[in-house]
Amino acid sequence: MVLRKNHLTVKAANNLFGREVEQMGKKYVIGIDFGTLSGRAVLVEVDTGREIATSVMEYRHGVMDEYLPDGVTKLEPDWALQHPQDYIDVLSTTVPAVLKEAGVDPEDVIGIGVDTTACTMMPIDKDGTPLCMYDEYKSQPHAYAKLWKHHAAQDEANKLNEIARERKEDFLDFYGGKISSEWLIPKVWQILNEAPHIYEKADRFIEAADWIVMQLTGEEKRNSCTAGYKAIWHKKKGYPSKEFFKALDPRLENLVEEKLSCDIYPIGTKAGEITQKAAEITGLKPGTAVAVGNVDAHVAVPAVGITEEGKMLMIMGTSTCHMLLGTTERIVPGMCGVVEDGIIPGYLGYEAGQSCVGDHFQWFVENCVPAHYMEDAKKKGMNIHKYLREKAKKLAVGESGLIALDWWNGNRSVLVDVDLTGLIIGCTLLTKPEEIYRALIEATAYGTRMIIDTFEENGLPIKELYAAGGIAEKDEMMMQIYADVTNREIRLSASPQTPALGSAMFGAVAAGKDRGGYDSIVDAAKVMAKVKDMVYRPIPQNVKTYELLYREYKILHDYFGRGTNNVMKRLKDIKGRVVQEKV
Amino acid sequence: MVLRKNHLTVKAANNLFGREVEQMGKKYVIGIDFGTLSGRAVLVEVDTGREIATSVMEYRHGVMDEYLPDGVTKLEPDWALQHPQDYIDVLSTTVPAVLKEAGVDPEDVIGIGVDTTACTMMPIDKDGTPLCMYDEYKSQPHAYAKLWKHHAAQDEANKLNEIARERKEDFLDFYGGKISSEWLIPKVWQILNEAPHIYEKADRFIEAADWIVMQLTGEEKRNSCTAGYKAIWHKKKGYPSKEFFKALDPRLENLVEEKLSCDIYPIGTKAGEITQKAAEITGLKPGTAVAVGNVDAHVAVPAVGITEEGKMLMIMGTSTCHMLLGTTERIVPGMCGVVEDGIIPGYLGYEAGQSCVGDHFQWFVENCVPAHYMEDAKKKGMNIHKYLREKAKKLAVGESGLIALDWWNGNRSVLVDVDLTGLIIGCTLLTKPEEIYRALIEATAYGTRMIIDTFEENGLPIKELYAAGGIAEKDEMMMQIYADVTNREIRLSASPQTPALGSAMFGAVAAGKDRGGYDSIVDAAKVMAKVKDMVYRPIPQNVKTYELLYREYKILHDYFGRGTNNVMKRLKDIKGRVVQEKV
Repeated sequence: MVLRKNHLTVKAANNLFGREVEQMGKKYVIGIDFGTLSGRAVLVEVDTGREIATSVMEYRHGVMDEYLPDGVTKLEPDWALQHPQDYIDVLSTTVPAVLKEAGVDPEDVIGIGVDTTACTMMPIDKDGTPLCMYDEYKSQPHAYAKLWKHHAAQDEANKLNEIARERKEDFLDFYGGKISSEWLIPKVWQILNEAPHIYEKADRFIEAADWIVMQLTGEEKRNSCTAGYKAIWHKKKGYPSKEFFKALDPRLENLVEEKLSCDIYPIGTKAGEITQKAAEITGLKPGTAVAVGNVDAHVAVPAVGITEEGKMLMIMGTSTCHMLLGTTERIVPGMCGVVEDGIIPGYLGYEAGQSCVGDHFQWFVENCVPAHYMEDAKKKGMNIHKYLREKAKKLAVGESGLIALDWWNGNRSVLVDVDLTGLIIGCTLLTKPEEIYRALIEATAYGTRMIIDTFEENGLPIKELYAAGGIAEKDEMMMQIYADVTNREIRLSASPQTPALGSAMFGAVAAGKDRGGYDSIVDAAKVMAKVKDMVYRPIPQNVKTYELLYREYKILHDYFGRGTNNVMKRLKDIKGRVVQEKV
Repeated sequence: MVLRKNHLTVKAANNLFGREVEQMGKKYVIGIDFGTLSGRAVLVEVDTGREIATSVMEYRHGVMDEYLPDGVTKLEPDWALQHPQDYIDVLSTTVPAVLKEAGVDPEDVIGIGVDTTACTMMPIDKDGTPLCMYDEYKSQPHAYAKLWKHHAAQDEANKLNEIARERKEDFLDFYGGKISSEWLIPKVWQILNEAPHIYEKADRFIEAADWIVMQLTGEEKRNSCTAGYKAIWHKKKGYPSKEFFKALDPRLENLVEEKLSCDIYPIGTKAGEITQKAAEITGLKPGTAVAVGNVDAHVAVPAVGITEEGKMLMIMGTSTCHMLLGTTERIVPGMCGVVEDGIIPGYLGYEAGQSCVGDHFQWFVENCVPAHYMEDAKKKGMNIHKYLREKAKKLAVGESGLIALDWWNGNRSVLVDVDLTGLIIGCTLLTKPEEIYRALIEATAYGTRMIIDTFEENGLPIKELYAAGGIAEKDEMMMQIYADVTNREIRLSASPQTPALGSAMFGAVAAGKDRGGYDSIVDAAKVMAKVKDMVYRPIPQNVKTYELLYREYKILHDYFGRGTNNVMKRLKDIKGRVVQEKV
């Protein structure tokens, strides 16, 4: 393995002299979060949740969206692949790194958990080896891991949805009426369509999280989170029927029996123990407990201490994921999924999402900020986002006279419609850039409010909000706006590595109380979960005005989003036709 | 008079050696256009319409909107005044200048016409002297000429409209249902309310155009254009009734008899002849014919050759005026006015308007264009508007997927609603600045199309379009878009001084055929009017797509503009309240 030095960053908290941190009798767990561009391990003290050391490693292959590693095999548009070797490299690099930095004896590390992006899936053979690792397949794009944002299976997703609707498949209701092209079945079907020999050769298709756990334990134990949210698996009903798969393609009839696993374990289960081989790679002791795999967004829920109903976690980045627990299974319009044991064992885990949050503000900054703002920001030594926020902060609620619909990238929840587009209303000759910027932020807050209201209308009350992710961390004005718009208190994750902390917690649960961990994620969360002391509280006067503005948003949302005026779709149709004619 | 040298620009066309231009027997006319910041005279050959010489002079006092000339008397917000001395200075400077430059013998100048902005009005005494010219009044703001864009009589306009609506005054129908604060009666009423002694002292209130003509002829002869469009005068019904004025304010009961003139002459009438005094000022010969005054936009109509029904002139600048002739009086929703003899004698002159055209694009450039566009434009040595046009030109019709409502400054025609605001719909993360820029241009074209359709639906067909003004001159892309959206040919004024040419043509009519001029403006227009050879013709494929897009515009226009969803007004209300609370 050729590892560039600067690909690895190791940080030890509160500890300049690693070795001194180790304390007699203390137990530790490690969580590893496999992101889109890098993996990060965090070593955590079990009885406090204190993060002792962190190590980040950028993937050597990054996201492959133009060429395969051979440098000659070109990928088509919308492709996005990862190399599973990078996952192994993260294990062999970051785990030893945190052990060393923390000065912790591997004996005292009782458990490990991992989470990945999802659906990130790959074909493997009988031995569990990804096909891309064989010489004969290394120039076959379909042999690699398809990253969550691989969007080249859109045709398959469209056909799947059409057939499911025709057949009135009730699983659609659990996924907001639509299966995404990002999910497992469309990706498998794309492989079958475009590379039937790879499909044939694959013994199984597996999620990256489950594959990594398999590398650690030598056993394949699939997790209920990815199975439920990404592979249309239901705890009581299982996968869709043979008839359904046959209706998609006769060759898919026996997909489940032949290429998927029905052996699905709830989140929080111990998957196995570190093997001798894995011990050599990671520096951990053989026998260390390993939790079943998990998904980055979902594993963050217990990391902020949510292990009961009524609390929603928002993971805010380029887009936002909303996570919520429930005790009864309800069909909520526009949710991304509801999965039993999908987030916390014993609960229904609900997921919703907004497809354009940070991306929205980035678009604005790149396309709509005048030169003199840029210059002034530079002069003041401010990042342009910060500069705009400083100006926007001075505006009273409602002062801009603007409302936007946050649909620059379509609408995920609650309308599940990629063909919706953005709108801004209320412009005058005096409208200023910071007013538009603030209106875009407010629009995403109204979008979240719409999701909250929809859950509540469907019997899932939401009393408090929690936030994690880069934006939540950085943008105080935005968080206050969210508190005011939703009229709810918001608490922030205190960990800079929320998913990795969550994975570490599941590692502690996999170890169990007898080995120094916890018997349940609820117990683990009581001690290890962390939120900041600071709470964003709604300001009554702002709440009042936002109530009026949200009412206007809702009218526009329903008028343009629920079919009264389908102008956005018609404009897209015209655009599509025109662009085609131009070519 | 202290005249700064650079205030005067003289240009002689096709003529380096002035004197040689004079030809035996040739007759000339002079038109003078008094604009907002400057006055310009043009000397024109009667039998060809050729513009021999032009002279422009900036007003010494400019627009007074902060202080009176005394330098200490401060003006309140929304005030805008002119000094009538500037009009005299334009006469005494630009007329001799064009005579000299053209090398024309004043004997051969047979007529003169003038136009001004309107309603630009002032109080004068029995002798015709503006009150501001007396020492005792020179520190009285209300003694000066109130410029068209003096907006401080809004309270009076609001009250006037309320009372007129209550009394069901039918004159409202002739003005789109609303009298503007820019017009004569609100301005007079403001004087009465705020400076009753000035109202008392004023012998008459007079439009600038009529006052200037009076300076040339020694006689007061008011024109039908300003009386009709600005002073609520109707050829058959006269001014509003005594009862109406009494309802406004008992002191206004006899306003018409006491302070206005009922002696109104159709456009094209000879007002009189140059007096000895005027001859001394201008260098013209006593006895030279003088036409009754006119308004800059209206006088442009014959200058492009429109003297019949079915042709609409658009004067395109920061806002757009639409002028149209008819043979029957019709009530067209949202028109600014319909006046008999108001544009061309013998016709009903219709006016409509869009309140935000050039202003719209200027707002965009100042607030929404990213730094790298500015830099790239600079590198290419391009004005940013030109740069954006170059990019926008490459887009196919419908390619942006955007539609805007052009209401950044409210909507004049056809909705007559200042509380409407701008909207843009169809934004995505790939939306580019030039796409928004083009959408704003298209929005103004849809607005014009809406005006055209409304006129046609009310029995006034429009077959061809004519355009004058800075934007029409400069922006080819925009003119092609207008041709495509309206599905009509567009011809451009060939004169760089369209209103002044129009005034000169009326000067030729005032002189009459016997004295070398013309007996009617129709005859004059046949010879002297000028359009460019180039015609913007609709491109069928574009017309087809714009038809679809306009359909969408219309749905949005009616939904937001005709009361189905008054969100724009509610946002303005919230904004108004919030801003007040903030103060």
